[in-house]
Formats: sequence, C-alpha cells, structure tokens
Amino acid sequence: MDASVKKAINTLIEDSTSVIVCSLDEDGFPNAKKMYTVENEGLKTFWFSTNISAIRTQQWLKNSKSSIYFYNDADVRGLMLIGNIQVYTDNETKQLFWKDGDEEYYPLGPTDPDYCMLRFTADKGNHYFYGSKEIFAIDSE
Amino acid sequence: MDASVKKAINTLIEDSTSVIVCSLDEDGFPNAKKMYTVENEGLKTFWFSTNISAIRTQQWLKNSKSSIYFYNDADVRGLMLIGNIQVYTDNETKQLFWKDGDEEYYPLGPTDPDYCMLRFTADKGNHYFYGSKEIFAIDSE
Repeated sequence: MDASVKKAINTLIEDSTSVIVCSLDEDGFPNAKKMYTVENEGLKTFWFSTNISAIRTQQWLKNSKSSIYFYNDADVRGLMLIGNIQVYTDNETKQLFWKDGDEEYYPLGPTDPDYCMLRFTADKGNHYFYGSKEIFAIDSE
Repeated sequence: MDASVKKAINTLIEDSTSVIVCSLDEDGFPNAKKMYTVENEGLKTFWFSTNISAIRTQQWLKNSKSSIYFYNDADVRGLMLIGNIQVYTDNETKQLFWKDGDEEYYPLGPTDPDYCMLRFTADKGNHYFYGSKEIFAIDSE
C-alpha cells in the first residue's frame, strides 16, 4: 500500500470517535451498531467494551464473523476491515482496559459480571476514496 | 409503537442524507457501506441507485439478506432495519428513478447497462435511544 494512503487510513481511524460494527443475527442477516473503540493496535486489533447481555455480544459468542467500518464525510473516505470478534470475560483483561467513568455502564466495577471486552482482529481491508477502492490483506501492512 | 417514537424515527430517516447498508460477502462475513437513499416509503421500502458491477450489488444478487442503519449522534438515536435487497435491472424501474446529475455515475443515461436500482424491503426494526431499545415488526407499523 502507498505510504500516503496508509497515512490517510491511520488518520481516518485516529479521528473517528466511533465506528460501525457488524455482526450476524440468529437468522444469518447482517446487523450493524455504532460503537466506541477503546484502543487499537494498527489496523489489526481493535478493542471495545460492552455488556455480555447485549444482543450483539450474544451474536458474536455464537458466530465471530464481523466487520468494522469507518467513514469520513469530509473527504469521502471509507475503510472496512473484515475479521472476527472474540469476547473476553476474564477479570485480567477487563481490569486492563477499565477506565474512570466506566462505572456509568458497569456499576459493579471492573469485575462486573455483565462487563466484557470485545477484541476485533482484522484479516483484510477495503479502502474507498472517491471512486477508487483498494482491497488489501492486513498482515502485509 | 408510541406515536412520539414513531415521529422521532421518521425524523431520523428524513434528516439522514445517507445510511449504512449491510450485505454478506462470499465467505459469509457481514459487510457495510455508506449509501445515499433515493426514495423511501415509510419504514418498509428504501430505494438506492448503484452499479451492477459493484462488489455489494454482486453480493446481494447471490444473497439478498441485508440491513440498513441510521444513526444520529446529536440525540444518540439509532435505527436498524433488517430485510432483503432486490436488484432491479429493467429499464422501466431505472427510468422511474433517474434524476438529473445521475449521468455523473452512469454516463450512458437511464438505460446504462451498469446502472441498476436496489430495493430494500424491511421485515423488522430495532430502535435505540440512549440505553433503551425496542424491536418491532415493520408490517405492524
């Protein structure tokens, strides 16, 4: 991938406060939800916090297939990453990502049994910019 | 559904200039793309124009399962409609929805063989507003 494209993609991710996260429902239909990223490592790994009881968490527990989608209206740039979501319920992971203010969502604190972390791992990506698009494998980046 | 919720949902759709449209790729992963709606009839039917050669059009020709997702950051309101997408390639439908300026995307005009219309038909919906959510069947609305 061209260095300027890579930079633009990284800027898109850094500037995004939220991202559309997709799952598969029990009937095999694609579902979408806006979520807030907690942390990411390049284009490969993205962490989200959520409730175990949430409909979409239950979907990923049954089928890990997912995609996440960033979009910037200003420069008509989109990035879809395709991969899988793993649900982490262990206290070590939960404590690692815990932040002040998370009590609002998980009143019992970092060991709240309804709090979990989602780890999205990308396998490939689609980058759109105006009419052009580029499909790429993540490991090569 | 409560009348005020119904009104808020209709406002969300009317105020949206674009919507996230989901599909299934050849490996069964959910995909997402931002698209511009051409026309809608309530919550049941949404029309989009696109290229037949587009990756996502080809996906819907193989598997019609879809969802469309509206979101408004200002009032933390989201609406996901789940349903199916049918691809229309007949000239009658294409001419019906043709608008001035579409030549930019389909240079050969309303009968451009790469221009087609997508019809999304919703079966059920998910409405999110802050922490609350409501799942509903579309035919009852």
